Amino acid sequence: MESMKQMRRIYLDYASTTPVDPEVVLAMEPYWNKTFGNAGSIHACGQEGMKAVDDAREVLKNFLGASALREIIFTGSATEANNIALQGVIQRFAFRNGKKTHAITTVIEHPSVLEPLRKMEVKGLVDITYIRPSRDGIVDPEEIRKALRPETVLVSVGYANNEIGVIQPISEISKIIRDFSNGISKLPYFHTDSAQAAQYLDMNVENLGIDLMTISAHKIYGPKGIGGLFMRGGIELEPLLYGGGQEYGIRPSTQNVPLIVGFARAIEILTPKEGNAWNDMAKKLQAYALEKIQDIHPAVEVNGSLEHRLPHNLNICFPGKEAELLLIGLSEKGICVSSGAACSSRSQKPSHVIQGIGKTERDARSSLRITLGRTTTKNDIDRFIDSLQELLL
Amino acid sequence: MESMKQMRRIYLDYASTTPVDPEVVLAMEPYWNKTFGNAGSIHACGQEGMKAVDDAREVLKNFLGASALREIIFTGSATEANNIALQGVIQRFAFRNGKKTHAITTVIEHPSVLEPLRKMEVKGLVDITYIRPSRDGIVDPEEIRKALRPETVLVSVGYANNEIGVIQPISEISKIIRDFSNGISKLPYFHTDSAQAAQYLDMNVENLGIDLMTISAHKIYGPKGIGGLFMRGGIELEPLLYGGGQEYGIRPSTQNVPLIVGFARAIEILTPKEGNAWNDMAKKLQAYALEKIQDIHPAVEVNGSLEHRLPHNLNICFPGKEAELLLIGLSEKGICVSSGAACSSRSQKPSHVIQGIGKTERDARSSLRITLGRTTTKNDIDRFIDSLQELLL
Repeated sequence: MESMKQMRRIYLDYASTTPVDPEVVLAMEPYWNKTFGNAGSIHACGQEGMKAVDDAREVLKNFLGASALREIIFTGSATEANNIALQGVIQRFAFRNGKKTHAITTVIEHPSVLEPLRKMEVKGLVDITYIRPSRDGIVDPEEIRKALRPETVLVSVGYANNEIGVIQPISEISKIIRDFSNGISKLPYFHTDSAQAAQYLDMNVENLGIDLMTISAHKIYGPKGIGGLFMRGGIELEPLLYGGGQEYGIRPSTQNVPLIVGFARAIEILTPKEGNAWNDMAKKLQAYALEKIQDIHPAVEVNGSLEHRLPHNLNICFPGKEAELLLIGLSEKGICVSSGAACSSRSQKPSHVIQGIGKTERDARSSLRITLGRTTTKNDIDRFIDSLQELLL
Repeated sequence: MESMKQMRRIYLDYASTTPVDPEVVLAMEPYWNKTFGNAGSIHACGQEGMKAVDDAREVLKNFLGASALREIIFTGSATEANNIALQGVIQRFAFRNGKKTHAITTVIEHPSVLEPLRKMEVKGLVDITYIRPSRDGIVDPEEIRKALRPETVLVSVGYANNEIGVIQPISEISKIIRDFSNGISKLPYFHTDSAQAAQYLDMNVENLGIDLMTISAHKIYGPKGIGGLFMRGGIELEPLLYGGGQEYGIRPSTQNVPLIVGFARAIEILTPKEGNAWNDMAKKLQAYALEKIQDIHPAVEVNGSLEHRLPHNLNICFPGKEAELLLIGLSEKGICVSSGAACSSRSQKPSHVIQGIGKTERDARSSLRITLGRTTTKNDIDRFIDSLQELLL
């Protein structure tokens, strides 16, 4: 019985991480011990590695619509990319003209955006305006306009929220920022954490008007331990790491050739066509799952806009229920869902995102995140619903 | 002919990076898309990942003789581990009691030690004493004693040099530091970059008296993109990254489960027994290669001590010859050697290490690094010698 459960485990936590696509595993394979040279070496063994890295960089450049290879920086994670962008810009411009810098973000960002900003705020390097989204989780671009100041160096708004999947009006926000900077100064820079978005949304940095964009491989069926930062040409920032000068000096370290190659392969698999097909399927499965959940527990509430939302995400409040107990009960039945971001789930703090959209701490403690993946089926959702129903009785 | 050369390529740049051991590739395999959960998730899929990370941490803990799991931090690279140790400690203690801190290092350290220190020196956070080793590349522990000051927070001396392979008297240096701190204050901390050492030397942090130790997977037949920092319990430092709190808050980011598992497997393969067997073989091959080189070009000089040296390393000056041309010529013949650290080889600057031991810029430009690996044979060395001889004519 136990082994049967093991076999039939159902994973519904794709926003936390995804399995690596078998094609990605295959793409990485030659780089473990055949083409294994250090991409920084001049000799032939190294140059093969460098070529693999440059080819991968070209894939990311095209995917994001960047205009030069050097606008793409490979990092060790999306957390690192966020930290480089935020700490890097603020530390570069802190006390320019003797004035403390200013930055704008929202209360629902990922910890790897909020924590470095808070750290620099505490250090006295920056004043920060934290925008509160409306109850549907959407940031009003006018709030950004009101918050802009002459000393604002950075605006950071996540493209699609990691917990509630709500999509922000990035192009509208970027237009406001461009209007404000009047095209003369390039400051403030506009950063967006797009770790959750690449699978579903337009990632073209020109369309979006983005200066700094964070992406992640392990959210799109690539490997963990590799992230990317788009950094528009001309942007100035202070690196976090110093060393051998790799990645244009922005992220020195021996280049992680296999994972860089895997990241690029994962992106190639996300062709617009396939992406859209999966988008439609995910939307249908999302609607199906929500309907079923409402059937078994009519009191549920969806956290955040259902319309402006990633199609694989459901974040649902079960009023009066303890989400953590549901999560553990589901896990015992072989079903993996989340009660918030994986990175903070060990801390057992109620979600700052759900509270950030005006819900109570109690609501936050009663909310489950269900995120679907490429291989999720109706049958998986039915099994999840059956198990959930048993737990809700 | 060309394809034959390709087939018979001889890699003699193991200090730059190593191929991943097939057993390591095998160990990582289940974690790509079977046990792929986020190690930060509470559910069963996540807990499997967390267990794999904890098991790997246990392997590193035992290998280094650490006393607690939380003394082992997984990072994205040895460069990152060095930066966390150096920036982390200095930023934590800068201007303690209103006084600028002080740190001690040597002029022959890896760029990922020297560059962050220089950066903090330029920022005015720290005064740095740069110790110059003797002509054999060895740091005199008495020089460290003379440099220690009440405001010294950190001493960083690499265990074995990445370019010339010279081994430093780490235990003697640590005794001097312990004497100075009088066992009362824990400062100054003693950091050692041991990226090159794990294959060959005693890595027990108690024997060595180390507070902070950097290690790397891809120098010991593990994957690129994963490093480790031993950080003795009670040490205080400021992290570089902020986010989800992973790795005890020292290096937040979704944990790179496959590469962490691979790192541990690479360390398991380095059992003392096998290590010693390879040590002996490497020593014989090193002697053989040196003898052959001296035969074909009697004017050569070994850079740094031959006695206190990693057994796989030869760094040799060919007076009057341009090392870069030799390197490129060898590469064209399918033989990969180095003219310095891979990370700075693109910059074409003459080695600061070779100049740091009192040689001229010209000597540095005439020096080749040949580093042997587990599968290197006498026959490989013979082929290298034949090719080198053709180029030296």
